[in-house]
Amino acid sequence: MPEIRQNLATKEWVIIATERAKRPEDFVSKKKTLTENKPARIDTCPFCPGNESQTPPEVFRISDEKGWLIRVTPNKYSALNESGERIRCFNGINRLMTGVGFHEVVIESPLHNTTIALSNLSHIELIFKTYKSRILELYKDERVELIIPFKNHGESAGTSLEHPHSQIIALPLIPHPVRARIEEAIRYFDDNGECVHCKMIQDEICCNQRLICDSKHFVSFIPYAAFSPFHIWIYPKKHNASYINITDEEVQDLAIVMKTTLLKLYKGLGDPDYNYVIRTAPKDEGNNEALHWYVSLIPRITKTAGFELGSGMFINTALPEKSAEFLRNVQI
Amino acid sequence: MPEIRQNLATKEWVIIATERAKRPEDFVSKKKTLTENKPARIDTCPFCPGNESQTPPEVFRISDEKGWLIRVTPNKYSALNESGERIRCFNGINRLMTGVGFHEVVIESPLHNTTIALSNLSHIELIFKTYKSRILELYKDERVELIIPFKNHGESAGTSLEHPHSQIIALPLIPHPVRARIEEAIRYFDDNGECVHCKMIQDEICCNQRLICDSKHFVSFIPYAAFSPFHIWIYPKKHNASYINITDEEVQDLAIVMKTTLLKLYKGLGDPDYNYVIRTAPKDEGNNEALHWYVSLIPRITKTAGFELGSGMFINTALPEKSAEFLRNVQI
Repeated sequence: MPEIRQNLATKEWVIIATERAKRPEDFVSKKKTLTENKPARIDTCPFCPGNESQTPPEVFRISDEKGWLIRVTPNKYSALNESGERIRCFNGINRLMTGVGFHEVVIESPLHNTTIALSNLSHIELIFKTYKSRILELYKDERVELIIPFKNHGESAGTSLEHPHSQIIALPLIPHPVRARIEEAIRYFDDNGECVHCKMIQDEICCNQRLICDSKHFVSFIPYAAFSPFHIWIYPKKHNASYINITDEEVQDLAIVMKTTLLKLYKGLGDPDYNYVIRTAPKDEGNNEALHWYVSLIPRITKTAGFELGSGMFINTALPEKSAEFLRNVQI
Repeated sequence: MPEIRQNLATKEWVIIATERAKRPEDFVSKKKTLTENKPARIDTCPFCPGNESQTPPEVFRISDEKGWLIRVTPNKYSALNESGERIRCFNGINRLMTGVGFHEVVIESPLHNTTIALSNLSHIELIFKTYKSRILELYKDERVELIIPFKNHGESAGTSLEHPHSQIIALPLIPHPVRARIEEAIRYFDDNGECVHCKMIQDEICCNQRLICDSKHFVSFIPYAAFSPFHIWIYPKKHNASYINITDEEVQDLAIVMKTTLLKLYKGLGDPDYNYVIRTAPKDEGNNEALHWYVSLIPRITKTAGFELGSGMFINTALPEKSAEFLRNVQI
């Protein structure tokens, strides 16, 4: 009998289609070239060293004696405009807002053929510290309400450039689905007097059926009602609404958990395409005791279709417990 | 300056990225073989005539003197179980429901190399009448709360079988995002004393900037805050919460509007992959005066990435008014 599972924090239902469930091995990607087998530098890549003039001027850089390690630049094809007033108005019966905000690119390494799974820990720390620096900087702009740092790895994850990079979008509003999640978390807090995410973390650690990696400050697991095969959540154990509060010690630990988790995916599933996103509190909700930041990591190994688009509900053809067990057993 | 548009009915925000906007021609699909150039019958296709024994036993059929025209069978890899009790329970702190419901396949034609865009109107009517018959039949099951008829056309729309078919999933619950849309529509009705969808339809017809096809009973247009390039809504003009109320005369007209709209996509964009879904009221809301059924049609010509997954908000690189103009000008 298939199960329909509901996520405690988001209230979203997922059909775990046990009758059509596949083995974890069936999700191994058929990618032609692993990231590590690509060239270390490509002349025509705008993010490779030597081509710095092809990007808009840098807004942030980390260097060592040999040159830059990480660069942040505005996105050349920005979805939002840095200048201009934030104005809400009507266009006939429809609502409209000026598209102000920021859209930045974090070029994660001078090397073309690397990715977090293959990077050393100190370099991964720099990437996650860069996110924090940029969020702090962009929040100074009073038009910004919410910041979304995210990564698209591979073509089916929506990236057009191969060179390792992530993006940061600073929005002048809070999208409807983000607000709905916040409201669910507040409702849980009202009813139970505790953070729903803290509750889930404790439960995942305690039941130990879906854990992938458990360290001092962070834990990664496949949620009970995972949307899709190998959908993973990475959480700080300490209650914290906003990513901007992460400490240096915690970043060190986050680097370990991100690398371990991503390397297990890389080795176990053959460098699958994936997205991750940091779900952090809106600027004005940074101290909301009902909220808890986390990273949502979604390997793009199945396709969403008409049912998902129409219902907002997912059919997952992998059993979360089996997928987690598979990843735990991947030797790295 | 990019625009951030909000859909009046769903409250969802979309960034219309005018700075990175592409011309309608840039979305033409690079598909190798158009549907019409595929073979009319494939020996190994389980949906082609002669292979009827490869599907589970038929639950519905329309035939003429030469044989079947449309067949409906349970999905061989059903996401839900037809038998069993609908039980909600807890699994530790998590909520769980037995996966009962129906998952059917509508084999739309004996021909392998056709699709709605290429079918004759009387055949398209039969497809849409089939949906109605099956919904009426499945609603008799008291465990069913919501039915989602949908179609996946092409590989990037998530289909694994080329033969023209659609699917019907009958759910034992109302998914969270569907409930959220219903609540928004009710709120609008409370505030304004009219159906928000009726209001949008009147406005689209009146402003005539995003219309594709306008007939006696139906209208198709690109919504003001379209999620993605060529995202289209097809609406009955007469207020009606549930698809089961569609009349024979209306089905005739729906066939014209579906064919016209899909043929314009087929010719204008080179047979793009797409999904459509019929958004109809839950069983118990069939007379809710705030709700209005419609078809949402989503060509899969761009990819969703980390930002969309993280924010639930979309970046559309096409201006809805330009896309609609392009489709209006496609000669069919």
